[in-house]
Amino acid sequence: VPATWIDADLLVPGEAKRVVAVVQPSHLLHLAWYAEPGQYWTSRENLRWVKATVDLAAAFVDRGGRRLLGVGSCAEYEWAEGHCDEGLTRMAPATLYGASKLAAGHMTGALASQAGVSAAWARLFFLFGPHEHPARLVSSVVRALVRGDDAPCSEGSQVRDFLYVKDVASALVAVLEHDISGPVNIGSGRPTTVKELVTRVGDLVGQPARLLWGARPADPVRRLTAATERLHRTVGWRPAFTVDAALTETIDWWRARERDGRA
Amino acid sequence: VPATWIDADLLVPGEAKRVVAVVQPSHLLHLAWYAEPGQYWTSRENLRWVKATVDLAAAFVDRGGRRLLGVGSCAEYEWAEGHCDEGLTRMAPATLYGASKLAAGHMTGALASQAGVSAAWARLFFLFGPHEHPARLVSSVVRALVRGDDAPCSEGSQVRDFLYVKDVASALVAVLEHDISGPVNIGSGRPTTVKELVTRVGDLVGQPARLLWGARPADPVRRLTAATERLHRTVGWRPAFTVDAALTETIDWWRARERDGRA
Repeated sequence: VPATWIDADLLVPGEAKRVVAVVQPSHLLHLAWYAEPGQYWTSRENLRWVKATVDLAAAFVDRGGRRLLGVGSCAEYEWAEGHCDEGLTRMAPATLYGASKLAAGHMTGALASQAGVSAAWARLFFLFGPHEHPARLVSSVVRALVRGDDAPCSEGSQVRDFLYVKDVASALVAVLEHDISGPVNIGSGRPTTVKELVTRVGDLVGQPARLLWGARPADPVRRLTAATERLHRTVGWRPAFTVDAALTETIDWWRARERDGRA
Repeated sequence: VPATWIDADLLVPGEAKRVVAVVQPSHLLHLAWYAEPGQYWTSRENLRWVKATVDLAAAFVDRGGRRLLGVGSCAEYEWAEGHCDEGLTRMAPATLYGASKLAAGHMTGALASQAGVSAAWARLFFLFGPHEHPARLVSSVVRALVRGDDAPCSEGSQVRDFLYVKDVASALVAVLEHDISGPVNIGSGRPTTVKELVTRVGDLVGQPARLLWGARPADPVRRLTAATERLHRTVGWRPAFTVDAALTETIDWWRARERDGRA
């Protein structure tokens, strides 16, 4: 099936209804949100995206949609808990971004449920890959190293769940095509320290000495990892990429970009 | 301090900002919401009230507000859990109303938190008292009995936390004046069956035989009671009314209303 692109600004009132009327979709995978690094944690844009998301979900269920998947975040959890389980961990977001994603997930779930529409909410953890904003962890380190610059890092003992964007994409499709309902963490299920991951970047680029450990403050959240029983057992999805394969593709992409002088 | 009334429709864009600019309040107790019996569980009006609530909270924190108290509901909890604890019970609302209140609570809390404003979220359970909509439990029974009619009731073994509206009002003021943050259940802390409460109504009106037990279907939620440690111990608030005193005031109010022919 060839893809059809339709441009729409979901922040414009009425646009969600218009697009849904044109497409009459059976399935909805909703990824759009405000995500400007350094801004999105606290921006009031989050409030506008809650409304845009809810408007889109309402239009979708009103026009005969059958399966809805929205995209949330590990920022919805109480970070003090460390390991995030969809059914057990407290939901006490520390940020307006996390609170807004949680709010959007609850509201779209309730809208779908009362219309008899199947709905799930994918919670993303730590992503990396080509096209990532250069201010983020993996992209900033890879970019510095392929340029031959130093890469200032935190001391790196924080534990996270990292996942390659191509695996994130295939996981979202798997959840969309399944009938699981409610929140589903999208994670590798392999807790990793920042230091382990960034060390692999240094080794794969061949510039381990350029990593300046402790040159940046570490995120005070010690551990933020994903329970993945729902994704790996219930949905039956597993990552296709090893960490090395994923980092190699990411490094190759940044090298090509630097070579082309588009940086 | 004499009260000043200002009329405003918070669903009209810009009204929240206007009112806050006029009043410049230090404290905000926000009760407005859509609450039409039979409609409010599923109505899309809930979505509009999430936005209105968030807009009001944003205007309040932007104009130097210091303490915000919003009003939520026991419908925010996963009802299968029975006893509702602010810190432990799963938040999985069964209704759009519950999801919307939960969403509004998270978003106003995050808006306040990042502005350094103190905020709490009061979760109401089962209220009764004068001025209640005649379609609700206590009001429907009292009204029927004072008219000399039969009062069809469910079998009544469901367990709930009931609280008199005057106690609810004083509890809200106590929470507003405290600095507790996050969700606070507003409850009596005395789990009661519907049958116990309605039996007292029958006895106090002197019409116990008019109660037709089992004539209506019972709510399938067996137990919905409030953990009240935060309200009773942390805030230090206790109800002032006994059940009998509260029911007597309610019955007297309905008797006067029926006598005046305003029913």
